[in-house]
Amino acid sequence: MPLITVNLIENVFSQEEKAEIITRLTDTMVAIEGENMRSVTWVKIEEVPEGQWGIGGMALTAPMVHKLQSEGGL
Amino acid sequence: MPLITVNLIENVFSQEEKAEIITRLTDTMVAIEGENMRSVTWVKIEEVPEGQWGIGGMALTAPMVHKLQSEGGL
Amino acid sequence: MPLITVNLIENVFSQEEKAEIITRLTDTMVAIEGENMRSVTWVKIEEVPEGQWGIGGMALTAPMVHKLQSEGGL
Amino acid sequence: MPLITVNLIENVFSQEEKAEIITRLTDTMVAIEGENMRSVTWVKIEEVPEGQWGIGGMALTAPMVHKLQSEGGL
Amino acid sequence: MPLITVNLIENVFSQEEKAEIITRLTDTMVAIEGENMRSVTWVKIEEVPEGQWGIGGMALTAPMVHKLQSEGGL
Amino acid sequence: MPLITVNLIENVFSQEEKAEIITRLTDTMVAIEGENMRSVTWVKIEEVPEGQWGIGGMALTAPMVHKLQSEGGL
Repeated sequence: MPLITVNLIENVFSQEEKAEIITRLTDTMVAIEGENMRSVTWVKIEEVPEGQWGIGGMALTAPMVHKLQSEGGL
Repeated sequence: MPLITVNLIENVFSQEEKAEIITRLTDTMVAIEGENMRSVTWVKIEEVPEGQWGIGGMALTAPMVHKLQSEGGL
Repeated sequence: MPLITVNLIENVFSQEEKAEIITRLTDTMVAIEGENMRSVTWVKIEEVPEGQWGIGGMALTAPMVHKLQSEGGL
Repeated sequence: MPLITVNLIENVFSQEEKAEIITRLTDTMVAIEGENMRSVTWVKIEEVPEGQWGIGGMALTAPMVHKLQSEGGL
Repeated sequence: MPLITVNLIENVFSQEEKAEIITRLTDTMVAIEGENMRSVTWVKIEEVPEGQWGIGGMALTAPMVHKLQSEGGL
Repeated sequence: MPLITVNLIENVFSQEEKAEIITRLTDTMVAIEGENMRSVTWVKIEEVPEGQWGIGGMALTAPMVHKLQSEGGL
């Protein structure tokens, strides 16, 4: 059962970071629900292309998100 | 909060149309909920490849949808 | 084809507002794609209970969202 | 109305198998709900890249799934 | 991996029909992918309240869907 | 942007555990992406009623999941 779906914008996170997202979110969930639930704890990452995710109507690109990550603000 | 997810078939809409979908759906939602909600109104567009969306068991291609757009009927 | 899913928190919008969301988002989408697409333009509204939607880790209630609507800020 | 979404990992199923998934899941659903519902029975297939679906924290590749298909176990 | 999500309107299908949807869609998927995949084939049914699913902007109720089932047309 | 959706079965987790899921998954995600991303990191929890989630065709109830949590096996 628990299914965790992570929606991201393409080119924001590296392969290593996406692997880390899967591992660490799983471990966090298992820490709450108990180790016996591990095999039925699924995490999938779905990405949309840059320009296909809008916040307040402004379509985001990966550089815009990277700027937010490093400098804050939007 | 409001999160609007738009599921489409690839190659049906141009980049300009997808940008317009994000802008106009956001504006429509904000017109209902109030301008203060704009920054927490998200719209994301997810596309599936042609052939991976079936209506009544018939898998659609972009040309089939374009024909529907221009001529009606399915 | 176009499928529009709107995710909301329960008790934020009235039945009338939710009906308006369905009507107006459909009309906006049809204005972009053409009237022939109306019958295959679907909008569904999915709500989660208060306390089950977190922004930055803060779980939102309907009164918190109503305060945001009327006063701005979060 | 019924909308059936099938989430898969890329490169596990062939185009022929995905076409079969759409056809047969539609037919199964229509067998339950009645033939009049066919035109409003939609099936869409969404795939995530290999490495973006974790079970118990282990990110799956297509060869891993193919091994499971032929040999069992995970 | 395969995950099948079925979106329905509340009060259209009985508990028995929903149980049948889970059983038969699983069996259909397993018939395609192989019996070894059964334990990782998940089906979940998500329902929205009547009035929260619009086709062409018309919000559907369960009686409207039942009428479609028995008489056809929409 | 990151949006994390957690799908659960009703009556498996308490309100306190669901609050903890929101807080801890957010913190885990922010630990990977950076603190500047916190305000655009959303977590929502969607639950389906007991009997509407099948694994291998077997529809799960909350007691079945609780038994799995305490004893392992399925």
